[in-house]
Amino acid sequence: PGPREVWKKGGRLLSVLLAVNVLLLACTLISGGAFNKVAVYDTDVFALLTTMMLLAALWILFYLLRTGRCPDAVPYRDPHAGPIWLRGGLVLFGICTLVMDVFKTGYYSSSFGCQSAIKILHPLIQAVFVIVQTYFLWVSAKDCIHVHLDLTRCGLMFTLTTNLAIWMAAVVDESVHQAHSYSSAQSNTSHTRLAPDPQSVSLCSHAGSSVGGDSCPCDATICQIFQQGYFYLYPFNIEYSLFASTMLYVMWKNVGRLLASSHSHGHTPSRVSLFRETFFTGPVLGLMLFVVGLAVFIIYEVRVSGESGQTQQALVIYYSFNIVCLGLMTLVSLGGSVIYRFDRRAMDHHKNPTRTLDVALLVGATLGQYTISYFSIVAVVVGMPRDLLGGLNLTHALLMIAQHTFQNLFIIESLHRGPPGAEPQDTPPKEPCHGLTFANSDALHSLPACPPTPRLVDPSPAGPQEAVDITLVPRDHWRRRCLKDISLFLLLCNVILWIIPAFGARPHFSNTLEVEFYSYTLWAAIVNICLPFGIFYRMHAVSSLLEVYVLS
Amino acid sequence: PGPREVWKKGGRLLSVLLAVNVLLLACTLISGGAFNKVAVYDTDVFALLTTMMLLAALWILFYLLRTGRCPDAVPYRDPHAGPIWLRGGLVLFGICTLVMDVFKTGYYSSSFGCQSAIKILHPLIQAVFVIVQTYFLWVSAKDCIHVHLDLTRCGLMFTLTTNLAIWMAAVVDESVHQAHSYSSAQSNTSHTRLAPDPQSVSLCSHAGSSVGGDSCPCDATICQIFQQGYFYLYPFNIEYSLFASTMLYVMWKNVGRLLASSHSHGHTPSRVSLFRETFFTGPVLGLMLFVVGLAVFIIYEVRVSGESGQTQQALVIYYSFNIVCLGLMTLVSLGGSVIYRFDRRAMDHHKNPTRTLDVALLVGATLGQYTISYFSIVAVVVGMPRDLLGGLNLTHALLMIAQHTFQNLFIIESLHRGPPGAEPQDTPPKEPCHGLTFANSDALHSLPACPPTPRLVDPSPAGPQEAVDITLVPRDHWRRRCLKDISLFLLLCNVILWIIPAFGARPHFSNTLEVEFYSYTLWAAIVNICLPFGIFYRMHAVSSLLEVYVLS
Repeated sequence: PGPREVWKKGGRLLSVLLAVNVLLLACTLISGGAFNKVAVYDTDVFALLTTMMLLAALWILFYLLRTGRCPDAVPYRDPHAGPIWLRGGLVLFGICTLVMDVFKTGYYSSSFGCQSAIKILHPLIQAVFVIVQTYFLWVSAKDCIHVHLDLTRCGLMFTLTTNLAIWMAAVVDESVHQAHSYSSAQSNTSHTRLAPDPQSVSLCSHAGSSVGGDSCPCDATICQIFQQGYFYLYPFNIEYSLFASTMLYVMWKNVGRLLASSHSHGHTPSRVSLFRETFFTGPVLGLMLFVVGLAVFIIYEVRVSGESGQTQQALVIYYSFNIVCLGLMTLVSLGGSVIYRFDRRAMDHHKNPTRTLDVALLVGATLGQYTISYFSIVAVVVGMPRDLLGGLNLTHALLMIAQHTFQNLFIIESLHRGPPGAEPQDTPPKEPCHGLTFANSDALHSLPACPPTPRLVDPSPAGPQEAVDITLVPRDHWRRRCLKDISLFLLLCNVILWIIPAFGARPHFSNTLEVEFYSYTLWAAIVNICLPFGIFYRMHAVSSLLEVYVLS
Repeated sequence: PGPREVWKKGGRLLSVLLAVNVLLLACTLISGGAFNKVAVYDTDVFALLTTMMLLAALWILFYLLRTGRCPDAVPYRDPHAGPIWLRGGLVLFGICTLVMDVFKTGYYSSSFGCQSAIKILHPLIQAVFVIVQTYFLWVSAKDCIHVHLDLTRCGLMFTLTTNLAIWMAAVVDESVHQAHSYSSAQSNTSHTRLAPDPQSVSLCSHAGSSVGGDSCPCDATICQIFQQGYFYLYPFNIEYSLFASTMLYVMWKNVGRLLASSHSHGHTPSRVSLFRETFFTGPVLGLMLFVVGLAVFIIYEVRVSGESGQTQQALVIYYSFNIVCLGLMTLVSLGGSVIYRFDRRAMDHHKNPTRTLDVALLVGATLGQYTISYFSIVAVVVGMPRDLLGGLNLTHALLMIAQHTFQNLFIIESLHRGPPGAEPQDTPPKEPCHGLTFANSDALHSLPACPPTPRLVDPSPAGPQEAVDITLVPRDHWRRRCLKDISLFLLLCNVILWIIPAFGARPHFSNTLEVEFYSYTLWAAIVNICLPFGIFYRMHAVSSLLEVYVLS
């Protein structure tokens, strides 16, 4: 490795500023394209995204062909970065995105005459970008790069920004589509008393034109299939962008990082065979809920698109299922936390950018669902409807908050536990200077700034406890089984709670309570901004729970 | 100090979750009170805020009377936390807030018959809260608390949340007031072609009622004065809440922190007499701009409230002044960064929560102004007006982005420089394990996880450079003068750029370009959400530049 960087934060600052500016520009264009009165043509958005993807792909190629081949470019690899399930998920979602690109190309080419060329170019370039980026992340996710520091940081941040911009564009496009189908459903049924505001109508008419309504009719069956198909594949594209973003962020954090490469911080689990170490109750119960959830989802979708009397019924079914599921998950997460109170495994204080990011993303993404729930609660409490649906809605919102909170506590505590039967010397305190249990604090004060020696002066306060750990390992076995059961159960529940909103169930709008309370515009804005975070939360919780399962 | 906490992050997590939930509840009620169709009565918001302030004040009293008096409660004090200018500013803004509370009480009591009691109770409780909290922060801002850890964390986070909720309520109230005066200005003058959307009309009528319009007429002169007065004092209340929040956050970060208390990391500047070490050009030029800015602000306010032909002229004056000011600031910041390229003072790698927070707040608050600027740029570029105002607007938006970027780079680099003539042993690397310049990396790999010894194996790579530092100190003197000039100039410019928007200049709405492009609702939402961050940025930049001035 070359000489150490003088000021790492300075190098990071530049790339963050670049990313922030590019992201805001993209954000402005995308939201301008969706909401303004005058036209920011969606071709502008497509052109911007295409340019960004081209530039990012070029940088990735430069990295693979030049930076990565410099001598000593990658002296260390971060063992925590890019675990196999993340990279596997990336490849899976990448393939789905490629299928979506095929559908998009087909859709736009079937009305080739009246569409601009950029709309066909965009999915093609996106396919190239996805292939290049997936290969890049597959081979380089663990790299700690030590050459071309500033260029690599800027390149990584730019690629990250590109993914976020694609994510935003997909979310906005999907919301507009949703609003479009909502307003057409409203005008089909007898719900005319709920006339949407002028704002939302203009949004919907815009949606119509962006979906291809007026100028480019999409009447052929093949075109309809393409259109339907690519809207159903959007959730995968969204997840692909977010997965890629998290991996790029970890790579960015690892640029210029120095690691003792021979030491991999434990945590390389022996390849246990799946399910052998569980009591089977967790996965079985989880699978049952999963199947029931799928059935509820199908019933809900069928009934909501039917008559209005059935909507009521569908909502009752939907909320009842969710309340049962969320209640069980809350109890199970609480149980997990209780088990940890009796568990004496040491906490893992190693520096670990991947885990820090995981925790931040979990807590951050929770805000989305929290916001929706609090708005529901205020609407129910202040609006005071005296019917069954109001009560169900309130219970659902409260349980949603409880479930997110306790599941987060469980997952975060799990991620910070050391491996079972960890050796004592594997867990030095994280802050060697400040984080000491001083046997004699006066002795410290006479020492210079950051004393290197007293770290091992008196290991006795930690010693006895860790000795207990080792002797307890055999007796801990049923606890590990319980934890594995819990994580599998939560995992399956999160998967079904991901599927239901990701594939288009929107009880937030079928249930007229909040729409009437806040007006359609405000409520749609809240739901369309916050729900993607809620969906991402489920996805991310699944990958974290998988890690908890493997590690516990 | 008691035994060391096993898992600090766990303790923090609980208090963060508490804060997030309370904050979201407050946020929902406040925004519901401002925007919804059905009434969330503003008395609900007042009741919530009053309860929160009471609870926070009770906890503060508990802290001062019980927690703070435990033996060994505060074994260390963080020398960086609560510097004198921050505490001074807090007291100053606190006094202004008390005056505002007097005005509010007067305003609500003058229409006592038709107002609910909570509206008079609210400013009184707020006055008590401000007094208790200011005293608390004055005496305890530097504490590193080591007893009642969880309770103290939750208490601090709850108080922080209370301040943020007050801040949000103030910002929303001010925006509603702004929208109200905008719409009445629109209906007074001949601008009827710009009829606001129904949404904004309902918002304005709501504003009318919350300001006291319909049910409670405010016709007496004394009542009018009270009302005007408290709206002019809002900016101080907003700043008070934000100052208190940052200090509380630093206290929260310091809970349970272990410091070598005798060592104060240098950075205690000798009390230099003001201005002695400058070339005077900075302060003089800054003062000139400050005075010109004040004149421009007054001219702008007078003309904009006049006829529509004069609005045009006022905007040209406003934009011209801003372009000159921002241009100079950009150049000066760039100059400062160039000086640092030749400056060989060591970077300060000490852990310092106050500084980390300062940097995060600077970069975070910048996003507000960035967003407004990017929306302006898109509106001008896509809307393509071919007149003088469009050009000025575009230049202004671009310079705004450049100025924020370069000023941030300058301030952040300044804050990370060590004190002039720092001694070499004062700057050990921040990450003792990873942050080494390895003389022999093979030797490291054979060592255990975090080797305590090799830190001083080979100090030679850093040695010669720091020796140069010491010999350069006398020659660095003109650089220090330049830096002091630069920081004073930027400080004064930031003050004037704070005053203009904080006291109500809104060229964003006088200039009809964006309003026409995005519709009034969307543009008002963008400006009203982002501008408070922009204003806070100026305030925060001033305090950071004061620190830069003192330290350089």
